[in-house]
Order: sequence, then C-alpha cells, then structure tokens
Amino acid sequence: IEAADAAGLAALVGDLHEADLGEIIGALDADERPLLVGLLGDAFDFSTLVELDESVRVQLIEDLPPATVAEGVRDLDSDDAVYILEDLDEAAQDAILDTFPAAERLSLERSLDFPEESAGRLMQTEFIAVAPTWTVGQVIDYCRETEDLPEDFYEIHVVDPGFRLLGTVALDRILRAKRMQAVGEIVDEDRRTARATDDREDVARIFERYNLISLPVIDDEDRLIGVITADDVVDVVMEEAEEDLRALAGVGDEEISDTVWYTTRNRFLWLLVNLFTAFLAAGVIGLFEDTIAKIVALAALAPIVAGQGGNAATQTMTVAVRAIATREVGRFNIARFVNREIMVSFLNGAAFALLVGLAVWGWYGERQLGAVIGGAMIVNLIAGGLAGVAIPLAVDKLNGDPAVISGVFVTTVTDCVGFFAVLGLATWWYGIV
Amino acid sequence: IEAADAAGLAALVGDLHEADLGEIIGALDADERPLLVGLLGDAFDFSTLVELDESVRVQLIEDLPPATVAEGVRDLDSDDAVYILEDLDEAAQDAILDTFPAAERLSLERSLDFPEESAGRLMQTEFIAVAPTWTVGQVIDYCRETEDLPEDFYEIHVVDPGFRLLGTVALDRILRAKRMQAVGEIVDEDRRTARATDDREDVARIFERYNLISLPVIDDEDRLIGVITADDVVDVVMEEAEEDLRALAGVGDEEISDTVWYTTRNRFLWLLVNLFTAFLAAGVIGLFEDTIAKIVALAALAPIVAGQGGNAATQTMTVAVRAIATREVGRFNIARFVNREIMVSFLNGAAFALLVGLAVWGWYGERQLGAVIGGAMIVNLIAGGLAGVAIPLAVDKLNGDPAVISGVFVTTVTDCVGFFAVLGLATWWYGIV
Repeated sequence: IEAADAAGLAALVGDLHEADLGEIIGALDADERPLLVGLLGDAFDFSTLVELDESVRVQLIEDLPPATVAEGVRDLDSDDAVYILEDLDEAAQDAILDTFPAAERLSLERSLDFPEESAGRLMQTEFIAVAPTWTVGQVIDYCRETEDLPEDFYEIHVVDPGFRLLGTVALDRILRAKRMQAVGEIVDEDRRTARATDDREDVARIFERYNLISLPVIDDEDRLIGVITADDVVDVVMEEAEEDLRALAGVGDEEISDTVWYTTRNRFLWLLVNLFTAFLAAGVIGLFEDTIAKIVALAALAPIVAGQGGNAATQTMTVAVRAIATREVGRFNIARFVNREIMVSFLNGAAFALLVGLAVWGWYGERQLGAVIGGAMIVNLIAGGLAGVAIPLAVDKLNGDPAVISGVFVTTVTDCVGFFAVLGLATWWYGIV
Repeated sequence: IEAADAAGLAALVGDLHEADLGEIIGALDADERPLLVGLLGDAFDFSTLVELDESVRVQLIEDLPPATVAEGVRDLDSDDAVYILEDLDEAAQDAILDTFPAAERLSLERSLDFPEESAGRLMQTEFIAVAPTWTVGQVIDYCRETEDLPEDFYEIHVVDPGFRLLGTVALDRILRAKRMQAVGEIVDEDRRTARATDDREDVARIFERYNLISLPVIDDEDRLIGVITADDVVDVVMEEAEEDLRALAGVGDEEISDTVWYTTRNRFLWLLVNLFTAFLAAGVIGLFEDTIAKIVALAALAPIVAGQGGNAATQTMTVAVRAIATREVGRFNIARFVNREIMVSFLNGAAFALLVGLAVWGWYGERQLGAVIGGAMIVNLIAGGLAGVAIPLAVDKLNGDPAVISGVFVTTVTDCVGFFAVLGLATWWYGIV
C-alpha cells in the first residue's frame, strides 16, 4: 500500500473515522507516516493528529512540509489547533501561525498564552452569543443563514453589550420555545462557568459534579471567551486519573509509543530515589548485625514485617491520594477520615500481629520469637497507617502533588520502622548488647 | 438547624444544586440524614441521592419511609432511577416499582435486567425518535407542543417503522436546516451505537475515541431502546480509571464513607494474600541461613535488591495493566511492547547493577561483595521486567482482571528471585556449602 498508489489509498482510508486512521498511523513505522499523509494530500483530515500519542504527533509534524501543516491546522476547530500547536517549539508555532488570518492568529495566540493544563487551553473559541432581547425565531433564523457556525454546538450563550455572560440556553430549550419568546426569558442564569486560568482538573470536577455537557469560559472581566464541551472533558478525566496511577507507580507521563531510551531515563530517576531510601533501610539493618549474627532467623522474618507494613501503608496512601485529588476530603471531614484510617490500621495490625506471631511460633517452635515479630507487626502497621494518611495530606498542604512523592516517603517509613521494630525488639528482648 | 425548622431549612437549602446538597448530607451524621430529607419534604429532589456515596445512599433509603422513596424515585429520569434502584435488594426494588404506572415499571424492570456495569444500566429510556419523512418544521413543532419531553436532549433519533435506528440528527443541525427539509436528508447515518449488553467500559472508550456527546443504545434486533449521554460517561470514566488504581493497591471498591469495620475486612484479604507470598520469600532466605551467618552484611543488602526489583516491576506492570485496560496494546503491537519493556529492564538493570555494585564496594570496602550484589541486581530487574509484562498479559488472556491479581504475583517473583539471586550468588561465589 505504501508504494505510492494515492487513489487506492484514499479509497481505502477515506471513509475511516479520524480515530481509526490515527490508530493505523500509530501502527506504521516512523518513516512511513509522513508518506501516508503526503499521499492522502487534501483528503487527510488534520484532526487525526489529535488522536495520536504525543511523541508520534510531534515527530510526524517535524517530518511534514511546514506549508502542509499550516494549511491542515488552519481548517481545525480552535481547541484542536491549540492541542496540536502547544507541543511544538516556539519557532515552529510562529511559522504556522504567520500563515493564518490576523483574527484567528490572535485568538490562537491568546489561547496559547494560558498556562498548560488550564481551561483556556481546553476551550474552543467558536461559540454563538446573542443578546437577551433576541427572540427564539431570530436565533433559529440566524443559525439557518450563517455559514460560519461552530462545527458542533449544544448551547446558545446570552451576553450583555459588554460581552459579559448572562446565561445560556440549551438547544432543546430553543426547540421547545415559541418563536416569539425572547431568549432572555428562557435563559438559565444559574450556570456554572470556568475562568480561563482554572486548572483543567477543576474543570473536569465541575463537569462530573454538575453533569454538564458544555461549560462557558470567561476571562478576568467576566467576558465570555470560549466553551469547553464534555467530549474534551472525557479525555481530561481519563488522563488525570491515569496521572495519579502513573505517579504512584513512578512512570510519569510515559506513553507506550515512547522510545526505549526515553522510557529508561524516565523510570531511572524514580528507581534512583527509591534506591537511596532502600540504603537507608539497609543502614537500619546494619545497626543490628550482632543481633542477626546470633539469631539468623531474623534476617528472613524482618522483611515480612517491613513488606506487610508497606502494603498496608500503600492501601491507606492510595485512598488518601485519591480522596485529596477528588476533593472528597476537605476541611469538614479530615478528622473523621484520619480517625478512620488509624482505626483500620490498628485493627489490621492486631489481626496480623496475632497471625504472624502464631505462624512464627509454629514454624520455628519459639514462642518468644513469635511475640517479637507479632509486636513489631502491630507497631509497623500503625506506623504505616499514620504515614499513609499524614504524608499525602502534608504534601498537599505544601502544594505538592501527593501522588508523585508520597510513595517514596511512605515506604521509607514502613521499611525503616519495620526493620527497626523487629531487630530493636529482638535485641532488647533477648538482651543482646 | 436540625431542630425542626422546616421553613428555615428549605430556604437555606432550596437553591442549592443537588451535588452541593449531596455533599452536605454526606457530612451529616447518619441519623440526621433522614431527618433532613423528611423536613424538606416535597422540596427534596431525589436526584440528590445519585450524588451520594453508595453506602450513605443505601443506608438513607432504608431509613426513609418507603412511600417517600417511591414517590421521589418516580420523578426521576430513568437512568437515575435505575442507579438508585440497582443497589437495593429485590424486595425493596419491588416495593418501589409496584407504585409505578405499568409502562414505567416495565421499562425500569427491563433496564434492571441488563447486567451490572452494562450500557443498558447506564442509558436513559427517554428519547425522541421520529420517522425520516418528518420535516425539520414538524420536529420543531413537535418539541414545542409536547409536554412530556426528556429533561435534556441533544439529538433527535431517526427510526424506521420497526423502530430500528437509521441515524441521528444533532440539534444544531436541526437549527441550521430549513423548515421544509426532511430529517431523512440531514441525518448522520454513520453513527456509532452501543448494544444494551455492552460493558460500560467499552461505552466509555467509544465516547473517548469518537468524542461523542450522546450515544444511541440498541437491542439485539437493532431497535433503539435508549440513549447514553456524555455527562454519565464522565462519571464512568472516573470510576473505571480509579478501579484499576484501587485494584493495584488492593483497596477494592472502598469509599471514604465506608465504616471502619467494612474497610478493615476489605483490606485484610489483600494483606493476607501478600502475607503468604512474604512467607514464601522468607522461605527462600531461610534456605541460606548458613551464608547469612557467615556474611551478615547480606541481611542488609538482599532487601535492597528485592525492593528495587519490586519497584521496577511495578513500573512495568502499571504500564502494562493500563495499556491492556485501554486496549492500547493489541495483537499488532504486543511484540513491540514486550520487546520495549525487556530492553528498558535490561538498561536500568545494568545501570543499577553498576551503581549498587560501586556503592557496596565503597561502603564495605569489599569488591567481591559489590560484584555479587550488582550481579543479583541485574538478574532481578530483568526478572521483574519480564514478570511485570508477562503476568498482566497472561491474566488478561485467562479473562481475569490484570489490575486485581498481577501485583501479588509480580512482587512475589521479584522478592523470591531477588533474595535467591543475592544469597545464591554469594553462596556460590564464596564457596559456602
């Protein structure tokens, strides 16, 4: 297929949805991708680029002739255009923007000026705004007669002469109303809005909480400047929940199309940090070499206590991180939440202290060793529970992202406390000094 | 406020969005919640219940008089009604459904018959369907004159006499078209649909992939039976990404409003499974007690290798679990994906072997010990990479949920291999038998 048969290719690919075409492009080898786009020519819809992984997209745009890219991007809705432009470096952005009509260029530049991951980057600047004195009939006639409407829209926005948002009217309200009715009478004034500088996570939360389909975006002076639609938010929500999951596992923003080299460096850093904390825990063990030399069984048993504490702490931490991210934990219920986690840690600590104590007694036939391990277990599970809830809350308080850093600290606590509890308790109990 | 001042309360609460009222209810004590609802009486909107955590909702419904619940649920859209009913036991469901008009009861019962987490549970059965011969004018007039329209809608569905879906028309297309045009001419026939029995995760993926606002649901005979809207999908997407995160950490479907006792039992099981695997690893260490007795430093160093392998494997596993869940990894690229993960494991294994080897040499001043630990490190990181990618793929192949069980197996592998590699290598190197 890649052998240059443009007409055949166009016939094959022409009817595909851009998401499906995007998947095909992703599956091709890197040098075949620009060939495909070149062969398709005008038939290639640049919104396909939005569906690609970031690394594939950036590479492909670099490989394409700048004029092709500029022309393709010009046909897109503003939110898709911003999505493609924001990953390019400034020189490449300017080269493309210079080919645009002045008004469009200005509006795109303004969108790109908003911080990354803000509502301003997510919105499309095409929308329909009318005065409250318009009648429903006028709105319908306007839609019938205007050529250059946004590609899809779900609401009509009502603004005052200064372009400040008064409210919105969903299209179904328009259909239900009589032609003579003024939109000012059927407008829903109690509408949520987002500021262009709001974080996109907050935007997603508004959508989730109030079950919206579209959300008007206003600037600092309450003027309507854009609209965010639910289909874009579905993507954001997916990415954000994924971000926490990846952050907790230490794989950052990696995509499966990233190169081996990029992935290795990306993961290396997280492993390096963990290595330091592992040496810390090793240092704790090193303090008790005499004890281990006398009771070698401790070398096998101490990791059980440390690991179990780590698992319990990870449970607590995961719940805490997500509760913070979704704002489920706030000022009002923080005490109740912390209390609950400590109670749970205590109960599971007691249960596993008993279980492990009995297992060790049974295995080694030494009741005292069972008591030492059991005692250390309850200490470490409670320490893990405390760390699992306190560290994410503290990181959040200091305006860090709990998902990114909590994991390292929490397992450091459970490793160090776990080893110290087992070996310290054994040293004291058996009177080894 | 709880002291019985109904009017004052209604004034305070009346203007709140149901999501905000839901948060207030969640923050109250359990016995205050039914009081609040009782005081609000008819002013209480039962869609507030949809915003509550499951455990709070079920408890509250049990505490309310059945007649109140039945009346409240009757006013809801069908998807909200199903959402509330599905958590109740059958007797409670029937008690409520019996008070409904026959047609509504049948349609709700049919929705409840679809499997949990299916498209059929998610859809609302209120929608507008017209024949392709209708004109745009007729549709608008129909909307103006009909009282009992769905609460919000974004598309008109076009069906044949057998109620089979022919396509859909977005409301903005209706507004743009001339009154005389037949909807059959502006219908978008290339529309994605979902079957009622499809998994809601697949539904969410269709929304994400094709950037939809609403999606028609059809039954086995291609008849239109409902509609799913993007606002419901936002919730699903959030829950599904969260499910994987929680499964990986072993906290299941717990919510922060669950009781201490429920949470403890919920986490206990996962910890118990992990405890067994920890004993397995301890057994590996136990095999080499003689070696440890001679070189006590190994007791401090072996956990470093085991832990680092666990961290690297968790990275790989997390990427694999998500790639499987989002179908990013399929038949075509599985080999490329596995290759990439093994290469990354090898590179990081080599890097950390060098680093740890040098660190141990520096710390203990023994070059041979450094070589042993470094050698074990590269072995364990490669083993971890293999396990991290192979186990989720195998679990998926066997139709299990990779997120739920992979973690236990993967860290079992890295713990056992890590300890075995360090202690076995040391035993062989130093000739201890």
